[in-house]
Amino acid sequence: MIEILKNKMTPESILTAGFGVEREGLRVTPQGKLALIPHPQIFGDKLKNPYITTDFSESQVELVTPVCYSVTETYDFLEALTDIVINEIDGDKELFWPYSMPCDIPEDKDIPISTYQGESGKKAREYREKLMAKYGGKRQLISGIHYNFSFSDDFLEILWKESGSELTYKDFKDKIYLKVLRNYLRYRWLIIYLMGCTPGLHESYIKKCLECMEENGHQTFLSQGGTSARNGNCSGYKNEIDLYPDYSSVSGFIGSVKEFINRKNISEAKELYAQIRLKPKDFTNVLGSLEKDGIQYLEIRTIDLNPFDKCGIAKVDLEFLNIFMLFLLLEGEEFFETWQQEALINEVAVAEHGLESALELLDKQHWTLKTAWAEDILGKMAEINEYLNLKQDHCIEVMLNRVKNPQTTYAYRLKELMTEKGYIRANLELANKYKLESVKEHYRLKGFEKWELSSQILIKEALTRGIKVTPVDASENIIALEKDGHKEYVKQATKTSVDTYITPLLMENKVVTKMILKENGIPVPNGEEFFSFEEARVRLPKYVGKKVVIKPKSTNFGLGICIYNRGGSLDELLEGARIAFEHDNTILIEEYITGLEYRFLTMGDEVVAVLHRRPANVVGDGILTIQELIDIKNQHPYRGDGHTSPLKKIELDDQSQMFLKKQGISVLSVPKPGEVVYLRGNSNISTGGDSIDYTEKMHPYFSKIALAAARAFDAKFCGIDIIIEDYKNPESAYGIIELNFNPAIMMHAYPFEGKERRLGYNILKTIGLAE
Amino acid sequence: MIEILKNKMTPESILTAGFGVEREGLRVTPQGKLALIPHPQIFGDKLKNPYITTDFSESQVELVTPVCYSVTETYDFLEALTDIVINEIDGDKELFWPYSMPCDIPEDKDIPISTYQGESGKKAREYREKLMAKYGGKRQLISGIHYNFSFSDDFLEILWKESGSELTYKDFKDKIYLKVLRNYLRYRWLIIYLMGCTPGLHESYIKKCLECMEENGHQTFLSQGGTSARNGNCSGYKNEIDLYPDYSSVSGFIGSVKEFINRKNISEAKELYAQIRLKPKDFTNVLGSLEKDGIQYLEIRTIDLNPFDKCGIAKVDLEFLNIFMLFLLLEGEEFFETWQQEALINEVAVAEHGLESALELLDKQHWTLKTAWAEDILGKMAEINEYLNLKQDHCIEVMLNRVKNPQTTYAYRLKELMTEKGYIRANLELANKYKLESVKEHYRLKGFEKWELSSQILIKEALTRGIKVTPVDASENIIALEKDGHKEYVKQATKTSVDTYITPLLMENKVVTKMILKENGIPVPNGEEFFSFEEARVRLPKYVGKKVVIKPKSTNFGLGICIYNRGGSLDELLEGARIAFEHDNTILIEEYITGLEYRFLTMGDEVVAVLHRRPANVVGDGILTIQELIDIKNQHPYRGDGHTSPLKKIELDDQSQMFLKKQGISVLSVPKPGEVVYLRGNSNISTGGDSIDYTEKMHPYFSKIALAAARAFDAKFCGIDIIIEDYKNPESAYGIIELNFNPAIMMHAYPFEGKERRLGYNILKTIGLAE
Repeated sequence: MIEILKNKMTPESILTAGFGVEREGLRVTPQGKLALIPHPQIFGDKLKNPYITTDFSESQVELVTPVCYSVTETYDFLEALTDIVINEIDGDKELFWPYSMPCDIPEDKDIPISTYQGESGKKAREYREKLMAKYGGKRQLISGIHYNFSFSDDFLEILWKESGSELTYKDFKDKIYLKVLRNYLRYRWLIIYLMGCTPGLHESYIKKCLECMEENGHQTFLSQGGTSARNGNCSGYKNEIDLYPDYSSVSGFIGSVKEFINRKNISEAKELYAQIRLKPKDFTNVLGSLEKDGIQYLEIRTIDLNPFDKCGIAKVDLEFLNIFMLFLLLEGEEFFETWQQEALINEVAVAEHGLESALELLDKQHWTLKTAWAEDILGKMAEINEYLNLKQDHCIEVMLNRVKNPQTTYAYRLKELMTEKGYIRANLELANKYKLESVKEHYRLKGFEKWELSSQILIKEALTRGIKVTPVDASENIIALEKDGHKEYVKQATKTSVDTYITPLLMENKVVTKMILKENGIPVPNGEEFFSFEEARVRLPKYVGKKVVIKPKSTNFGLGICIYNRGGSLDELLEGARIAFEHDNTILIEEYITGLEYRFLTMGDEVVAVLHRRPANVVGDGILTIQELIDIKNQHPYRGDGHTSPLKKIELDDQSQMFLKKQGISVLSVPKPGEVVYLRGNSNISTGGDSIDYTEKMHPYFSKIALAAARAFDAKFCGIDIIIEDYKNPESAYGIIELNFNPAIMMHAYPFEGKERRLGYNILKTIGLAE
Repeated sequence: MIEILKNKMTPESILTAGFGVEREGLRVTPQGKLALIPHPQIFGDKLKNPYITTDFSESQVELVTPVCYSVTETYDFLEALTDIVINEIDGDKELFWPYSMPCDIPEDKDIPISTYQGESGKKAREYREKLMAKYGGKRQLISGIHYNFSFSDDFLEILWKESGSELTYKDFKDKIYLKVLRNYLRYRWLIIYLMGCTPGLHESYIKKCLECMEENGHQTFLSQGGTSARNGNCSGYKNEIDLYPDYSSVSGFIGSVKEFINRKNISEAKELYAQIRLKPKDFTNVLGSLEKDGIQYLEIRTIDLNPFDKCGIAKVDLEFLNIFMLFLLLEGEEFFETWQQEALINEVAVAEHGLESALELLDKQHWTLKTAWAEDILGKMAEINEYLNLKQDHCIEVMLNRVKNPQTTYAYRLKELMTEKGYIRANLELANKYKLESVKEHYRLKGFEKWELSSQILIKEALTRGIKVTPVDASENIIALEKDGHKEYVKQATKTSVDTYITPLLMENKVVTKMILKENGIPVPNGEEFFSFEEARVRLPKYVGKKVVIKPKSTNFGLGICIYNRGGSLDELLEGARIAFEHDNTILIEEYITGLEYRFLTMGDEVVAVLHRRPANVVGDGILTIQELIDIKNQHPYRGDGHTSPLKKIELDDQSQMFLKKQGISVLSVPKPGEVVYLRGNSNISTGGDSIDYTEKMHPYFSKIALAAARAFDAKFCGIDIIIEDYKNPESAYGIIELNFNPAIMMHAYPFEGKERRLGYNILKTIGLAE
């Protein structure tokens, strides 16, 4: 089989598979007690949000990645969801518990079971109440990682075709997955050793379980040599008796599960708490669908949360699991009657004594030193890695180190930490650290860094609210959003189906814009158009000395605009015309209205944000030079390239050098304390300007004008630039300068000064995907 | 006053004014009898169509230009309307009578009075019935030119400000227009001489009028020395008695008109048949509005139709009128009691004896030789022209020639023609000539030649149906269309408000297009994407020898596409990838489907046209070389630059030279009779391809597929390219190649082979402006 892979596939395509991670975790108070307030409303209907829901308890958040096709993609998506959860759960009152075993928990009657909406919600609730009665609530609060894995269709099809199998493709697939499942059962002890991390319990946990541990002070109970209480016999989440389904075929499996149900060992298929599960296409009819459609993927449930990683699982562990699945497929099998019992013995042995150096396990009915066996397996994996040129040396070496040096395992490290700080403090410190990390970079959405910030804002909001996000084209910033059968495609956050095709085409033309505004009774600056430089030359003399602006008919980022706010000479006006003609074959001259320019952002029927942009500037302190002040200002986390950052770093080009020179200063000048030094005339964010929120400060009269302008074009998403003499006074002179059909939203979402506006929500509302 | 113009205005702005022309004309049978079938339905509601309506009679079409701002614009618009009328009135059964006096007409009882819709239509009809009773139907059939003129606001404001007038602007304006009106009355005899052209009558006209003429055979009655029977005492369209309103002020005028109505000389203000009229803002309340809002413009009603011009008035005459109005403004006045009577005497004298060389007129109560006086006026105009550098020498010289050589006047020339051919034949021959001209260039819309042909198609259809067209930006092909208060902006004919903003953005991306089509169950060719040349190099080997197409993710006009319809070598495929990467940073490789490519054009819920594009080709005759055959093919009137022409001239570039070389021939080869020689591989119209209509031939199954594809994107205007093996067979293999969001429509409207599709109508229907 390995020969087929070697000859017919590239290393990259061998490692390409379907990955999905579910990560549970408790919401806790800053004191480490179970949070008793409900699941945040923003996450919407728990039964419909595909990304963020609850598990057994209302306080137990479950994060679910969609199917991803690489380890990096999977980890990034999980990190994005983790950041969202950490930021959305009530920041002052709650933390996200990083450990699999519960925090300081109350008795069963006070553990809040998840509540749900509607008829199917009623069933979900009833099932949980039954579990509570049968297993107790405390055990149900245990959280972990579920790792879902499927081989790619390409991978399976090539194996099927090249192996000359006489099976149908469906049967071949089932056979592959069953083999991997059986081998997983055999070798799962290794995962429990490498990734197990439940060495301790809190005193509020089930009394009987605490007895298997040693009391260590600080309400802490620790296992001496165990790696994973969660996978052990004493504290874990297991069926009442050990069940050994038939994994030789799908029909055999179905038969055995039906037998368990008949025998009332379990009430339905999903109550079978196997370490690894066969997953069907149709979840509402697990056994029927497995038979009809075959196995779709495998779900591994062994893995404990890794409290040393914000996401609950380290990327290196995901990398290892990827190649481990391949090892399970390639490794031969030996069948004997008690192979499942043997695997269970090994599981429990490692869970409860994995850190003991002399531990022996049963390898095909022979006792073998755990360390030697582990090294043997990792050696085989290293061979596969080398033979297929998979370049996964790093993760194998990390695991080999964990085998050779048990003190590098998560379980050992956490036990040390709990010994020092106690169970609650050890976990709370980690939770607080992750919270700081998530809050600090809250404007970035992990895994979507290549997307424009505006798209990141929208995607993040959609993920939060459980609106299905499908990235369609990252380079063009196109996504599909879907909820309750309503699908919308969105490009660059605000190019949507709710605006018409013609609106942006009209708006990008300044002459047409003015015409339409005028028709709708909205004041625009007086002015005229020139279609040639010759025409400008003839008609410009009358504007000499007047306050005017000269600009190209269509503009982008303020390019080609000259402002004469103190009037210009004929030569200066002609130079302005020349510059404007470089950008368009029609130019405009307009009266210059005195005042400050404000950007009004409208979505649907609302002005959702207003801001003023101040030209790039620094404020002196009497000590530092302008250049030094710029360097410091540029260190602000919001300043970057202006596309993936809310603000742009200030760059000193020729224009700004000239601008300083005109003021009689240079970058080496030292401004007085409090002195504001402007570095250029225009206020665009794209040239280092500051954004200052005015949403609440602006007089509502001007917001009405902005909305009327957007409506004149039937524009649902619109940025309206208005110059206003006095923003507090509705009688003040004003004039609309420009309308923008693809308005930047990041400057409102993350302004330099003032309140951050949650615009992802407004976008979703405008396109009908949020209320 | 002239000094102000000289110093404060440019020649161009002095000549800029508001012009509007109304031109009436009868629909006649090919035999010259009055057409008795109703006004064409396509022109819609007569009371609402602002361009094409009827006047007194159902058979009397009236063409109305909007306000234009130059002579050229005015003439062009009139020509556009004339072409539309000539093409739309039933071509085989009707002609457009070019002469002011009626054709062969029946008695009053058989003259069809215009019919109208609705309540206001009832009033319009009643007014006409009253006129019929009072003046007789035959006189009402006389047609002419109404010339509307207003000075520009700029012009009037500068005069007002610079003259230091103490009047309000409104009063100043009234004063200006009243002066021009009075001088027009004084000098109108010159216009009747220069442009008068009703030297004859048909025997079916009012008997009493015929008596003023000499019978000349062919049912023709001619005036010997008259220029304009229409303006004479005998045959024209005048009030029952001569009325002399007070033109000294607006209030004086209103008083005198009210007096006429009291005296029952006329029933309402509009029945005052003056040679020149003061026009109000509000037509429903003429006198009240004149008082309140002031005079808006002047309407000159003197001018006869010029049968020597398709439009009824020559451009040189419009040029002359422009400067003539200026002369009337600048020329001084002398008042005496009988100045209006004197002007009327002169008018009648010229109308009835203008061609007599010895004719004398009354100039301020002194008899003066008409010729000398005319030369004097034209001399003054020449001085104005020179002093203000207006460059209108040509039209003044033409008029001087008409004065010096009466045989060059329209009246004289037409009298000669009628003498030779008879009244009816002379006019029918001219009408037939204009019809041939209009039909020949039916795909061009006069005055809109700079617009893309697709916009011309839409504008023409809108004008025809009386939908108000406002050109918004010619260089960007943006128009506004308005009907019954419903306004739509349209860019490039099919970019409208009925499509959404996101639709074209999705459609321009081939990867997204395929994804969405697939999701909607519509077959697309198999294939994959490459994001780098490196990736292409790794994955292309498996496509060697297979029928494939390589293309950039976003394409325009088929650029960067390589077709391997007989399979390619690795080198050839890599070269294709290299070319495709020149156009985009993502490229596609797809299976090549055998068959012909068809373009389906959908608008709204219909497939409105289907065509096949054949690559540039020539058909041999055994004599001419390929180059000569190309030259002949390029002479087809539809072939031009491909933007303002339906098809593009075939150009032999390097690619087509190579294409011929591969076939072992060159441009100097002589193909056999009937042999089709293809000049390139791709079939785009933009590279000289032929368009062949398949709308009726195409199996409806494929039209349904095309419509489903457009609907998948919610696209109202869409061009769908489908490769089909056998267009007659719904079982045939097919694949969608591409969707176009701004589909070319001219190739369907004016195909190389097959029926021309009237797509302007479909566009209007789709945007809700036609039913």
